[in-house]
Amino acid sequence: MIFRQLFDSVSGTYSYVLASRPGGEALILDPVLEKVDRYCQLLRELDLKLVKAVDTHLHADHVTGLGELRDRTHCMTVMGDQTKADVVAMRVADGDKVTIEGLSLDVMYTPGHTDDSYSYLMGDRVFTGDTLLIRGTGRTDFQNGSSRAQYDSIFNRLLKLPDETMVFPAHDYKGDTVSTIGEEKRYNPRLQVRSVDEYIELMANLKLPNPKMMDVAVPANMHVGLHQEELEKEGRALSAVEAIRVLGRPDILLVDLRETNERMKHGMLEGALHTPYQSVEESLKPGGMLREVAAATGRRVVFFCAFGERSAMAVAAAKDAGLTNTAHIAGGIDAWKKAGGPVVQ
Amino acid sequence: MIFRQLFDSVSGTYSYVLASRPGGEALILDPVLEKVDRYCQLLRELDLKLVKAVDTHLHADHVTGLGELRDRTHCMTVMGDQTKADVVAMRVADGDKVTIEGLSLDVMYTPGHTDDSYSYLMGDRVFTGDTLLIRGTGRTDFQNGSSRAQYDSIFNRLLKLPDETMVFPAHDYKGDTVSTIGEEKRYNPRLQVRSVDEYIELMANLKLPNPKMMDVAVPANMHVGLHQEELEKEGRALSAVEAIRVLGRPDILLVDLRETNERMKHGMLEGALHTPYQSVEESLKPGGMLREVAAATGRRVVFFCAFGERSAMAVAAAKDAGLTNTAHIAGGIDAWKKAGGPVVQ
Repeated sequence: MIFRQLFDSVSGTYSYVLASRPGGEALILDPVLEKVDRYCQLLRELDLKLVKAVDTHLHADHVTGLGELRDRTHCMTVMGDQTKADVVAMRVADGDKVTIEGLSLDVMYTPGHTDDSYSYLMGDRVFTGDTLLIRGTGRTDFQNGSSRAQYDSIFNRLLKLPDETMVFPAHDYKGDTVSTIGEEKRYNPRLQVRSVDEYIELMANLKLPNPKMMDVAVPANMHVGLHQEELEKEGRALSAVEAIRVLGRPDILLVDLRETNERMKHGMLEGALHTPYQSVEESLKPGGMLREVAAATGRRVVFFCAFGERSAMAVAAAKDAGLTNTAHIAGGIDAWKKAGGPVVQ
Repeated sequence: MIFRQLFDSVSGTYSYVLASRPGGEALILDPVLEKVDRYCQLLRELDLKLVKAVDTHLHADHVTGLGELRDRTHCMTVMGDQTKADVVAMRVADGDKVTIEGLSLDVMYTPGHTDDSYSYLMGDRVFTGDTLLIRGTGRTDFQNGSSRAQYDSIFNRLLKLPDETMVFPAHDYKGDTVSTIGEEKRYNPRLQVRSVDEYIELMANLKLPNPKMMDVAVPANMHVGLHQEELEKEGRALSAVEAIRVLGRPDILLVDLRETNERMKHGMLEGALHTPYQSVEESLKPGGMLREVAAATGRRVVFFCAFGERSAMAVAAAKDAGLTNTAHIAGGIDAWKKAGGPVVQ
């Protein structure tokens, strides 16, 4: 396995590049905007294809690299259901899995630092974001933070993991790079409390100044979505209402870019083919399935996904591959359902 | 195995704590003085006994934690043969091994950054000090640095290791934590040269300012040896000449604290018992071998080692254990041999 912990010394942020093999797919956790050049260089050097960029939560102390990485690599952006980010390619909830080739991360909803804070468990490693830090915990005094929720996330979720589980947080300010659940249980000074009320009191008395970057980072991180003006101008974006109207028309080929678990969870569109976004580029090449089906049927390919990001990128990829008779459903299944569109389970 | 990479953000130094198991012996590489509290806390928390503190070379950018760690934990300090540090407990040379319980590091002499620069290989990890950095190399323009020697150390030693060997340097300034030999071979910009002369020219044109800490760090790091004034005042330090005079006397029990490989390499004293320094504390406890032998024979225990540090600490440990009729040979076997003392191989 390839595992790289990368440090941004300005914000004290740890980012993580994960992959199962050289030449394979990669995932990055909590990337920092200013380090995107370095990530891209490293990905090239390790011969990795970035397919997912995940933020554990909406950060207040640095601008996320999610949008920039998506724009450069066409990877999917991933955050939790509760995030206030405008658009990400995939939203996850407790119990979901985030997978790439050869690797699978269990999604744990661990609110408290913010109400969109998640942790990701991969075997004997847990990526705890700002929920559990090394000998510390993330502050809970803004962004719908809750020390009560954090107590529950830490004591009833994270600390229930095996003692030897390695803890990789999103930040460290004192030079530690890793800890274990067992160590934090015993030696994290904030966790030596006897009750949730004691923890709440402890957290209420920290009186920390706001992060320096907060006024810049939070708004920037809330506007991470892909810019789609071009697609609209080109008439390649169907609104959900327009899409509902063309459902079932014989000249339209609906292509679902979501992963199996998303389709099972949120429902499918009648008559749609499916190919996960990660394979769409391959499928659009000469000899690729999608290219052949589009050519054989002569139908207009209409991509859709969860929120319209993957499908917008697929339209662009199709154009690059010489397929111009394509469009996508703006806002994805999410908008479709909100507009009253029918789904099948 | 326990493996901890620790960062000092002031000097950009990576230190490494290694151990084979919780509750066992530990070794630390390139500790920083200002972080000694943190190291000691972590060692306590992980239930580790620090037995060796190793500097890859005499650092010019931070004050070493070697002396402070020795004073606090009674560990052995270790550096290379060529070091200009006044006294360390053990000096190593190319081909030696540095061992602790359950772990063994191969010593590689890799001069260039300084003439006392060493790398340490442990399985698929190599600790490269300032010889090979991630996408860089250590400067060669002071402390008897030599870009010619460094070229040889890197190209003919380090880069001959398997491509997948993980590279853990003593510094990083850009947020990387680890690399591999294969990556550095291909992507380290300083290593894309066609000849040693090209490398020498490249290094000659860096024109770097001296490290900020240099005027403080170098003198401090050269005076890392244990203060032994007390022992001398108490009459517990025999000079080499005095020691040679008492060799063979029936009221003297010579105890060699060196490790087997040191004894084989540098010679032994006729009639001396031996117990490695790491076990001396145990041996001094009630029921311990050394305590029993001293009591049974009534002889004065005279400890000795390589340079007199371990033996000085053993005298102190004996005093703590209630054995007061002890002394040591100041300067160790090194001083003994320089004074013309006889050794047996």
